[in-house]
Amino acid sequence: MATLSAQRKHKVTVVGSGNWGTTMAKLVAENVKEHTSLFEETVQMWVHEEEVTLPKESKHYSGSDKPEKLSQLINKVHENVKYLPNITLPPNVVANPDLPASCKDSTILIFVLPHQFTARSCEQLVGKILPYARAICCTKGVDVGEKGIRLMSETIGMSLNIYCGALSGANIASEIAQEKYSETTVAYDPPPMDSRNPTPSGSPNASQVDLIAPSKAVPGPRSTRLTPLPTEYPHLSHDNIRKLFHRPYFHVHLVNDVAGVSLGGALKNIIALAAGFVDGLGWGDNAKAAVMRVGILEMVKFGKAFFGESARASTFTEESCGVADVITSCMGGRNFRCAKMAVERGESIAEIEEKELNGQKLQGTSTALEVNAFLKSQGMEADFPLFTAVYNILEGNAKPEDIPELIEPKH
Amino acid sequence: MATLSAQRKHKVTVVGSGNWGTTMAKLVAENVKEHTSLFEETVQMWVHEEEVTLPKESKHYSGSDKPEKLSQLINKVHENVKYLPNITLPPNVVANPDLPASCKDSTILIFVLPHQFTARSCEQLVGKILPYARAICCTKGVDVGEKGIRLMSETIGMSLNIYCGALSGANIASEIAQEKYSETTVAYDPPPMDSRNPTPSGSPNASQVDLIAPSKAVPGPRSTRLTPLPTEYPHLSHDNIRKLFHRPYFHVHLVNDVAGVSLGGALKNIIALAAGFVDGLGWGDNAKAAVMRVGILEMVKFGKAFFGESARASTFTEESCGVADVITSCMGGRNFRCAKMAVERGESIAEIEEKELNGQKLQGTSTALEVNAFLKSQGMEADFPLFTAVYNILEGNAKPEDIPELIEPKH
Repeated sequence: MATLSAQRKHKVTVVGSGNWGTTMAKLVAENVKEHTSLFEETVQMWVHEEEVTLPKESKHYSGSDKPEKLSQLINKVHENVKYLPNITLPPNVVANPDLPASCKDSTILIFVLPHQFTARSCEQLVGKILPYARAICCTKGVDVGEKGIRLMSETIGMSLNIYCGALSGANIASEIAQEKYSETTVAYDPPPMDSRNPTPSGSPNASQVDLIAPSKAVPGPRSTRLTPLPTEYPHLSHDNIRKLFHRPYFHVHLVNDVAGVSLGGALKNIIALAAGFVDGLGWGDNAKAAVMRVGILEMVKFGKAFFGESARASTFTEESCGVADVITSCMGGRNFRCAKMAVERGESIAEIEEKELNGQKLQGTSTALEVNAFLKSQGMEADFPLFTAVYNILEGNAKPEDIPELIEPKH
Repeated sequence: MATLSAQRKHKVTVVGSGNWGTTMAKLVAENVKEHTSLFEETVQMWVHEEEVTLPKESKHYSGSDKPEKLSQLINKVHENVKYLPNITLPPNVVANPDLPASCKDSTILIFVLPHQFTARSCEQLVGKILPYARAICCTKGVDVGEKGIRLMSETIGMSLNIYCGALSGANIASEIAQEKYSETTVAYDPPPMDSRNPTPSGSPNASQVDLIAPSKAVPGPRSTRLTPLPTEYPHLSHDNIRKLFHRPYFHVHLVNDVAGVSLGGALKNIIALAAGFVDGLGWGDNAKAAVMRVGILEMVKFGKAFFGESARASTFTEESCGVADVITSCMGGRNFRCAKMAVERGESIAEIEEKELNGQKLQGTSTALEVNAFLKSQGMEADFPLFTAVYNILEGNAKPEDIPELIEPKH
């Protein structure tokens, strides 16, 4: 048994230190201290270094106005004063501004980077990590283009040639940092193998082999050959992965469906726009619940159409990364609020983005556009009437008032 | 083909004229006018007669302060001035204060009565309706006791010895009356039979035969022998039932699962209390979405445990009567609001009911108590930790703060 022969402990690195990354580092650091036979006590957190000047009002103000390095400040005051202020981190979180050094000898890499930084950060790690490291991607979003869909977990797994699972759920970071109760879904399904049988056996690993969709658009499943975890490490079973993430205030449910978990976190933003549109019309709670329900079923259909058996309906309809994340996003998320505001003020989403978001862009609008380009390339716009309606509203080809007619089931 | 030999049209009666009943009468009356080959043009609406005095400000004020009969007023001004004011009814809605007369010769009876009046109204109809009439129950709720569960549709179907389906969804009546977009779920699954084969054949009809749960508590499925619809009437297929209810602003999805549709409308109120409790604690949207998700899965489990194959998981996770009704109820429903208020003010639900509801009782509290008594009798409290937590909070045995621990999955 792997656990009986275990002599080495897993070393954990959190790659990223925004508000979500710092929150993940906090909760993982709490957990490793409770499972000392499984994990090394120190959790490395990679910090994209920057200079920070503390205001005089800060409780950490030292009397000097000299800027300090963020990583040094975090290690001194045990708080990410810039991205997660007023939350004390356990002292076993160690901020490290050197990306390869922060990941050195780590068997578990938790990626929590903004979407656009993930690929280039991985590039810097190629050849510098343990070949048998395992990753979990906590960043929501997928790369969608006319040619296909690539999950963030796939970007990470392929560039580093390691297995990468995914974590997603109804997870507003600030609430979790304050230890308010929430849930999440972790997809973790490495191919069955051990050191005596280093070639993945049994069914192919969905998240590594077959995740660029649709299969038509890609020549065929790429083969994969992952380096097995040495037997002197405790097996990274669902139970041990759960020990790493589950807290009394952060309930974890493990599934095998990396595709579904990843898609949920991306597609929900399109649904949040639709919910915002009907809410902006003053149509009430029936209408809002209706577009949310229709949206969840389009997620299910999308997963099935482009990821086949890899994406399970229940991931969308029963898990935190599906239905619960849709609910949270449609109650008060940024996409929902901006869409609602656009209708109420009679302005375009682009105008609202400019006025309200300081030049930032909504995730939902780019996802809606990318998903539409992809559906068009597949000749499948009509099969996803809500996603297509949102696209057409964004493009000025339809009005929010048209949604009921556009999504009316044909009989 | 039944439709080719059809010579008679279906006559429709709406039994009930509260705000939901009047709303149903309005939309059904709109539909029968659009399908004149299927339905008679007049829709009868039974009105529990009462005297109404119109205020001087009313646009219908006639100059006299003499009270008028509600049914006569409705037929005169085409508005239910008492229960659905400011909504004009189509003139083919005919209010009738005589219950048996309103149902005479009707082939389709739509029951929209308050829970507590349904059984006694059915008693008055025994022997006075067409033996081959079909009913649809639009009242939410089930009768739960230690001995078992009886659906409203079953109460109606058994006392009148006719088939009864169910309609339920994220359906706030006032929004539908204003023709704001919403959806609903209609469960309609009469046993397969025709006049040449008057005994139900094929699989037994779930809503008639096997719906007192659990099977242990009841000697065995009761036999049923429904009177077949004469062939001179158009077949009441899913498509024709849909024509009766579907509107551009009221999208109907037909299913066969009477048990699931009925349970959803009852159990969601327990979930709304739980959502109100955590929202009252200020725990934010993650926590609220989490209890909603956990609650939906307890609905699924409840249906499976006590109704077996009759209640399908997808009815709860994918239909308007399930997930969407949970969402609507947890956004602003009465159970949600009162539970939230109770926690915020540090008062009991009973105190809030007394102060805020003019002595009326919340549906959620009685359902939570009844469901708990039933689960206890089955030794299954621990299998439904959220439903049980809500019961214990209502009884003062637990605090809202305990919810995460009480519903934490055991590993």
